[in-house]
Amino acid sequence: MTNETASAATFQYTKSRELYERAHDVIPGGIYGHFNPDMHKPDGTYPHYCERAEGARFWDADGNEFIDYMCAYGPMILGYRNRVVNEAYQAQIARADTCTLASPVMIELAEYMVEMIPVADWAYFGKNGADVTNLAVMVARAATGHKKIIAITDGYHGSTPWMQGDDRCGVVEGDHVNVVRIPWNDLAALDEALAEHDGDVAAFISSPYHHPAFQDNMLPAEGYWSGVHERLKRHGVLSICDDVRAGFRIDLRGSNEHFGYKPDLICYCKAIANGFPISALVGTDELKDAASTVFQTGSFWFSAGPMAAGLACLKELTRLDAANLITETGTKVFDGMVDIAKNHGHELKVTGVPSMPYLRALHEDGISFHRALCGECTRRGLFMTSHHNLFVSAAHTDEDVQKTWDIFEDALVALK
Amino acid sequence: MTNETASAATFQYTKSRELYERAHDVIPGGIYGHFNPDMHKPDGTYPHYCERAEGARFWDADGNEFIDYMCAYGPMILGYRNRVVNEAYQAQIARADTCTLASPVMIELAEYMVEMIPVADWAYFGKNGADVTNLAVMVARAATGHKKIIAITDGYHGSTPWMQGDDRCGVVEGDHVNVVRIPWNDLAALDEALAEHDGDVAAFISSPYHHPAFQDNMLPAEGYWSGVHERLKRHGVLSICDDVRAGFRIDLRGSNEHFGYKPDLICYCKAIANGFPISALVGTDELKDAASTVFQTGSFWFSAGPMAAGLACLKELTRLDAANLITETGTKVFDGMVDIAKNHGHELKVTGVPSMPYLRALHEDGISFHRALCGECTRRGLFMTSHHNLFVSAAHTDEDVQKTWDIFEDALVALK
Repeated sequence: MTNETASAATFQYTKSRELYERAHDVIPGGIYGHFNPDMHKPDGTYPHYCERAEGARFWDADGNEFIDYMCAYGPMILGYRNRVVNEAYQAQIARADTCTLASPVMIELAEYMVEMIPVADWAYFGKNGADVTNLAVMVARAATGHKKIIAITDGYHGSTPWMQGDDRCGVVEGDHVNVVRIPWNDLAALDEALAEHDGDVAAFISSPYHHPAFQDNMLPAEGYWSGVHERLKRHGVLSICDDVRAGFRIDLRGSNEHFGYKPDLICYCKAIANGFPISALVGTDELKDAASTVFQTGSFWFSAGPMAAGLACLKELTRLDAANLITETGTKVFDGMVDIAKNHGHELKVTGVPSMPYLRALHEDGISFHRALCGECTRRGLFMTSHHNLFVSAAHTDEDVQKTWDIFEDALVALK
Repeated sequence: MTNETASAATFQYTKSRELYERAHDVIPGGIYGHFNPDMHKPDGTYPHYCERAEGARFWDADGNEFIDYMCAYGPMILGYRNRVVNEAYQAQIARADTCTLASPVMIELAEYMVEMIPVADWAYFGKNGADVTNLAVMVARAATGHKKIIAITDGYHGSTPWMQGDDRCGVVEGDHVNVVRIPWNDLAALDEALAEHDGDVAAFISSPYHHPAFQDNMLPAEGYWSGVHERLKRHGVLSICDDVRAGFRIDLRGSNEHFGYKPDLICYCKAIANGFPISALVGTDELKDAASTVFQTGSFWFSAGPMAAGLACLKELTRLDAANLITETGTKVFDGMVDIAKNHGHELKVTGVPSMPYLRALHEDGISFHRALCGECTRRGLFMTSHHNLFVSAAHTDEDVQKTWDIFEDALVALK
């Protein structure tokens, strides 16, 4: 598009808006949690409800088609309705899903994760990411006999009270009494925390790199992870890698391998089963006994369908060398967008990793320009939130990439 | 069976045992949580893995067939692989399941629950039962500005740390600082707790009747619930009904209706969607704003498949008048077992409610006789745990009931 005449944004969200109004009668806030449309600014640029999804695309309640760079906020790593995963899932639930006993597929999935992930000598399954970050903390406390947990400021490990900021509604002071927050990439702060709570720290929990919402994402500084682990070892503190969001997107052996370190425990969730609900904690042999003493469970933690889906998904990720594949796709898409932005006189800052980068168009108006840009993209069929890292899947095709660039350019022109 | 010659218990669990040994290599304890086979005494009388399930029956890894009175510990209320629920689920996931946006079916499900449950003016969905007991506590704290939670001694509200006893591995002192435990059916203890923490109590949380594991279950004493609510109202304390286990098994309008009281919040999980993973918190209009201020979410909380399954399941429960149906079936099955036991000189104590009763054969040897009895039943195809309440489903047929009685009698004879 050289004539700089943008196609008009034609998407209407009439049905989405009607549904959202109707939802307010029976659901607090209409849509709660991380799907709350209040996150999407400016108002009116985003749809609220999905009717159908396939591959890298979904269709909203008004029939608008989107190339999806949120991938259900991570789970959809192979693309919506992936045939291989869905066939394995269907074959399992045709026999048994949620039952009175565990299923043999639970063992197969654990064996596959142990084979796939160097740190993993065992696996323990839950439903939510928070189920396994919580379990990791309990295992670390059981193993060390210590109480305190060191975490990164603004690091997200699920929404249960101890993991939320104490300024959040419904969270009370006591919830945080054992959590010490330190800034990312700050070894001096870690030294200070370890000294202050010496002999009482069970674990250090962190994602493999820092990917908070509403902020540029930050990779580990040179020597950060080796420095962290030298210190943890010296103080007898365990290392928990929260790979819920980045898991299988950077390195199929664990994102920690990419950054050159070995935690004691790794938390997985989103992408394990391409959208079927399952999470997993894996850990080293040294912590197996401690893990077996902790009581953690849930109504659907033994459902066999998501375990069969998980096994099929991990095998398919391996077959496709998916972490490298989506890293290549992400590099291509976002490098292209940086160039297009530059051609239009804008700087697009891309942080984090290519398979789930955080985007921000720098502008004298601050965040409002980037929000408007994402809104203009979305109104043309390129779904991108403005406040959260994006996600690429193995189903994003060259055609999707070209259309992404075309829409992005259109949106930039429209904002002139 | 009048000749008192029991059929031999023929079930072998060779494959279950092999799988369980293999599992120990890659899963802490082999099978963790409430499915841990260590719960099943005596060792060797129970299978560990399920291959297939249909209606009220399942088949273990060795091909043994069982009439199932655990119903997946509650979820399976219409029977395994219920056609109506599964068709609704399949139709939904053929369009979209876990996606970047919520699904319109989320609104339909919330609307249906609001219509079905008098206390419910809104609904909020999660995955685990503990997700919604935790959410209920957060909503109560947000609404009242108070911290403390009064709960019943041995009342189970999920396995996250604040809900577990502080003698459990991985649980630390701080986790319990705001939880006050009082005995069941004890208004004087409630008075004392409310007086001691006056002005600092957010909520009282309890199941509609007391159904701890390893103990006879206890119904509310005459006047208990009205006494509780008179006191809560006087002190400005909210009432949370944990109906995760009993929900839809006593009264489709909420188990509280059966016992004649109105809580402010009700927690549901297990049976909502006949085994597909979803939980729900419902509450009154007065708490809707507070609920909208609390941030709670999870990776799969917006998955549309389990919501469509939940909608279909609740409609089917309504069509079948299922709470009454399974209460009738349970009454018939367990009254019959009490008579059979009596004919053989044993007293079988049945507590709780007929659709999910707690059984205990009284004996001078204490619990070991009941354990042996349950083991002998299971080894003949009648799956009953000895430590937990049982569950009846709408799929248990007259044929199942007759076979249940035959096996139970056989087991009693075998133990003579």
